Amino acid sequence: MSKFDQYEGFQVQSADTWTEFHLNKFDTKPFGDNDVEIKIECCGVCASDIHTITGGWGGARFPLAVGHEIVGKALRVGPKVTLVKPGQRVGVGAQSWSCLECRQCKNDNETYCSKLIDTYGAVWPDSGVVTQGGFSSHVRTHEFWVYPIPDSIPSHLAAPMLCAGITSYSPLVRNGAGPGKKVGVVGLGGLGHFAVLFSKALGAETWVISRTHSKEADAKAMGADGFLATQDKDWNKDHLLSFDLIISTANSTGEGFDLSGYLALLDVHKKWISVGLPEGEGMNVKAMDLVGNGCLIGASHLGSRREMLEMFQLAADKGIKSWVETVPLSAENLSKTAQRLRNSDVRYRFTMTDYDKVFGA
Amino acid sequence: MSKFDQYEGFQVQSADTWTEFHLNKFDTKPFGDNDVEIKIECCGVCASDIHTITGGWGGARFPLAVGHEIVGKALRVGPKVTLVKPGQRVGVGAQSWSCLECRQCKNDNETYCSKLIDTYGAVWPDSGVVTQGGFSSHVRTHEFWVYPIPDSIPSHLAAPMLCAGITSYSPLVRNGAGPGKKVGVVGLGGLGHFAVLFSKALGAETWVISRTHSKEADAKAMGADGFLATQDKDWNKDHLLSFDLIISTANSTGEGFDLSGYLALLDVHKKWISVGLPEGEGMNVKAMDLVGNGCLIGASHLGSRREMLEMFQLAADKGIKSWVETVPLSAENLSKTAQRLRNSDVRYRFTMTDYDKVFGA
Repeated sequence: MSKFDQYEGFQVQSADTWTEFHLNKFDTKPFGDNDVEIKIECCGVCASDIHTITGGWGGARFPLAVGHEIVGKALRVGPKVTLVKPGQRVGVGAQSWSCLECRQCKNDNETYCSKLIDTYGAVWPDSGVVTQGGFSSHVRTHEFWVYPIPDSIPSHLAAPMLCAGITSYSPLVRNGAGPGKKVGVVGLGGLGHFAVLFSKALGAETWVISRTHSKEADAKAMGADGFLATQDKDWNKDHLLSFDLIISTANSTGEGFDLSGYLALLDVHKKWISVGLPEGEGMNVKAMDLVGNGCLIGASHLGSRREMLEMFQLAADKGIKSWVETVPLSAENLSKTAQRLRNSDVRYRFTMTDYDKVFGA
Repeated sequence: MSKFDQYEGFQVQSADTWTEFHLNKFDTKPFGDNDVEIKIECCGVCASDIHTITGGWGGARFPLAVGHEIVGKALRVGPKVTLVKPGQRVGVGAQSWSCLECRQCKNDNETYCSKLIDTYGAVWPDSGVVTQGGFSSHVRTHEFWVYPIPDSIPSHLAAPMLCAGITSYSPLVRNGAGPGKKVGVVGLGGLGHFAVLFSKALGAETWVISRTHSKEADAKAMGADGFLATQDKDWNKDHLLSFDLIISTANSTGEGFDLSGYLALLDVHKKWISVGLPEGEGMNVKAMDLVGNGCLIGASHLGSRREMLEMFQLAADKGIKSWVETVPLSAENLSKTAQRLRNSDVRYRFTMTDYDKVFGA
C-alpha cells in the first residue's frame, strides 16, 4: 500500500521494450493548495514521447507513462486555486511547474526556468514522486499549467495544440510573424502543420520547405502560400535573402542536411528557429553560412501560459482545425501508434481517445 | 606597358611563400566619377590578411597586396564625388564597393550586398583588375567606402578601427549594448580589445572571457568590469543566464571549444555573435545548447558606412585609444609582423607606418 494517492495509466517499462505498454497503478504527488485534479478525456501523441521511451534522448525514468497533450475535466481544485474552476474543460501541456519567482518566470519565460518540472519523467523535489503523463486516468497539476479550453474547439483537436501547437506558435509570435512577413516552415509533420496553420492565422506569407513534393497538396490545403522541395535543382535560388523567419521542425540535422541552403533564404539578421529537438550529435554550423547575411540560429522551448491562452483564443476565433487521426486508448493501440509515429506515418497528429472505456465514466 | 594606371605595393606571390613580400607594380582600376585616389600613410595588419595569404580561407588571387585598414590623404576625387574633398585625411576598410541599389544596400546593410567588392583580392567586373590592399603606395576607392577621420584620432590608431574596430562596434550597437546591459567578449586579441573599448564607451557592463588569466590586467586597463577564465573550475556558474550579448572573437571553434559553457551565460533569447571568421570545419551546435535559454547564434560582417562614421565620432568624443604597436613598412617587417600575428604575438594590433620612406613624400 503506497503512502501516496494513486492513478493508473499505460506505462513503458524500459527503452528496450518501448513498444509494450502496461496498464499500471502509479503514485501521484500529494494534492497541493494550487493543484488541480483532472480526469483525462484524451491525449495527443508527441514525438517527444517516442524520443523518451525509446531512450533516444536518454535519461528517462521507467516505468513511465508518457503523453503531454492532455485534455480533461477539472474534478477538484486546491484551496488557493483561482485560475480553474471544478467542472471546467482544461488542458495540460509538456510542462507542469516552475518556480514562478525567478527573472525568467516573471518575464513570460517560465519555460526557461532552471527549476522547471516536465509533465512526465520529472521528480517532484519534495515527495520524490516521478511525474506521469497523459495516457493515464488522471493528472494532478499546478493551476498555472492548466489552461481552460474555448468551447468551440473539440477536445481531440485541442489536445495536440498543448505541445505541438504551442511549440510552433510561440516562436512565430516572438519573432514577429504577421502581415508583410514571409515565413518558412521546414518539414511538414505534426509541428510543421501547426506552424503553417498559425503562421497563416497570424497573417504571414507562409512557405513550406520539404524534401519532396509529396506533401504539397496538404500544405496548400492547410493554407500555405508556396512550397519548395529541396530535391529540386536550384530549389532556393529565387528566394535568397527573402525570408523573415524560418521555423525548422527538422528531426535530423546531421549528414546530408543542407543548412547552408536554408540559411541563404534569410534576409539580413533574420532567424532560423529550430523547434524539433533532434537526437544525436547536433549540427555543423560554418561561420561562412552566418556571415553572408548575418542570420541567426536559435531554438525555442514550448511557450508561456500567456501564449497558450492567446493561441487557443486565436484558434477559436479563426476556426483553426488541427489535422488529427483519433485512436481509441489501449495498450495495443498505443504500441501501434508509437511505432507509426516513429516511422513518420501520420498526417499529421494522433490523439488517443475513448478514455471512459478504459477508466470508466 | 599596362593599359591601366599602376601603383606599387608589397605583394605575396603564393600561399606557399606567404612570409615573403615583394615590392611590385600592379594595375589599378580606371578612375571613376565617384572614385577617390588616396596616398596611403599607414595601414593596420588584420588577421584576415594572414588567413588570406596563407591560403587558410582559400581562393586568394596572387600576386596580392593585402592590408585593409588604410589611412591616407585624398589626392584627387572624381567629378561626382560629394563625400570627400581633396587633401582630406581619410580611411578605407575591408570593403570597397557594393551595388547601392538592392534592399540590403538601401537599408544600411551594404556589407551584405551580394555584389560587394573586397578591398583586396576581388575582381572589378568591368575591367577585370584585381583589387590590391593597403601595403601599397595608393588606393583608388569609391567615395562611399572612404571615411573622413576626426582630427583628434592619430592615423596609426585610426587605422585598425577600419576593420577590427568596425567589426566589433557594429554588432554591439545592432544588438543594444549600452547602459544596463551586460556584454561578454570572448577572446582578447585585436578584435576583442576593440569590443571592450567600444562596449565600455557605449555604457555596457563589460566582461572579458579568456582561457587563462594572462590578459586580465590588460582587460582591466581597457576598462573591462570583470574577467572570466575558462580554465577555472566552474568558471561560468555565477553568471548563468545573465549576459545580454556575447561577442565572440574566437579564432578556433572546433575540438575543445566549450560552446555549451558559453551559451549558458546568455539570458533568454539573447545572442552569441561571432566576429572572428575561423578557418576549417565550423562548430558543432547541439539543439540542447540552444533550447535551455532559447539563445541565438549569429555572425556579423563588418559594419555600414553610417556605423563607421558613428564609431569614429564616438572614438573622438570619448578619446578611445587603440592599443597599437607601430612597425615601419618594409618587406622584411611585413614578413616578421605577419608571422608574429599568425602566432598571436601582438598586444593588440599592428599598424605599418613610415610609408614616405618607401614611396616618397
